[in-house]
Amino acid sequence: MNIHDASVPVFTHFLRSLSAILKKAEAHCAARKIDPNVILAARLFPDMFAFTRQVQIASDTAKGAGARLAGVAVPSWPDEEKSFDDLQARIGKTLDFLTALKPDQFAGAEDRDIHLKAGGRELDFKGFAYLETSAKPNFFFHLTTAYAILRHNGIELGKPDFLAGGQ
Amino acid sequence: MNIHDASVPVFTHFLRSLSAILKKAEAHCAARKIDPNVILAARLFPDMFAFTRQVQIASDTAKGAGARLAGVAVPSWPDEEKSFDDLQARIGKTLDFLTALKPDQFAGAEDRDIHLKAGGRELDFKGFAYLETSAKPNFFFHLTTAYAILRHNGIELGKPDFLAGGQ
Repeated sequence: MNIHDASVPVFTHFLRSLSAILKKAEAHCAARKIDPNVILAARLFPDMFAFTRQVQIASDTAKGAGARLAGVAVPSWPDEEKSFDDLQARIGKTLDFLTALKPDQFAGAEDRDIHLKAGGRELDFKGFAYLETSAKPNFFFHLTTAYAILRHNGIELGKPDFLAGGQ
Repeated sequence: MNIHDASVPVFTHFLRSLSAILKKAEAHCAARKIDPNVILAARLFPDMFAFTRQVQIASDTAKGAGARLAGVAVPSWPDEEKSFDDLQARIGKTLDFLTALKPDQFAGAEDRDIHLKAGGRELDFKGFAYLETSAKPNFFFHLTTAYAILRHNGIELGKPDFLAGGQ
């Protein structure tokens, strides 16, 4: 058991689930003649983030965790996605970044000091606590909320779509 | 880094978040004179599980993971909760079960063969893959869906309620 295997392959598996879920959402829009923007802008309550933002944050959480645990700079990407294709490209870019990290960059990362700013607060963690109580929970929070927005809008998805890693 | 620390303290931290979230939901019902059953039976789409069931499954996923990784029988609890108090008791019972497991019961659990039935399918995993690609993702899926149901119904919660472990 090591912190690379508890982070990168988990994020990539579930980013591939997210990509497959997006494909189903796009196909649903095409089949029912639904403007994709209706789904991309959907949210569960007025002060919650819309679907597109949920996907962007899932991407940010995964790339931020990979970068911080590998000890490299967190890449900054503008949040400009306006279509399912744009979101697929964002997920693809996140997968490329994560899979380019080498397992040996994560040596000792469980004890590395991690500092970040989130929700206007300064947060300090050791690497292991960061991964287990912040990064992965946040990642699954936004992934699940994206899934829930789609289900709430009638897109046919099931737990296997969430779990399957795009298989 | 070991598989006990990557499982039991994660589940207990977020079960405590869930307990605190339930308290806010109950207080909201009392303040607005909302029948608690309306919230307990709320769901995001007709074929999704209601709030009460989301909490029960979060509990089941956590106790199942703790038991399987510790190599003890998974306790079976009837799904009879009918109130916020009942759900708090279920969460409390789950916390008691998990915290009674000893870290040394998890020695070698990352390579243990885990067999379970879920969604009508027979699943086989090694312990580590079970924890990282099934147990924790499922746990966060149901926890987040419970949170989303409450937010969709106007209960005032924020990301800190999800992350704080009841602090």
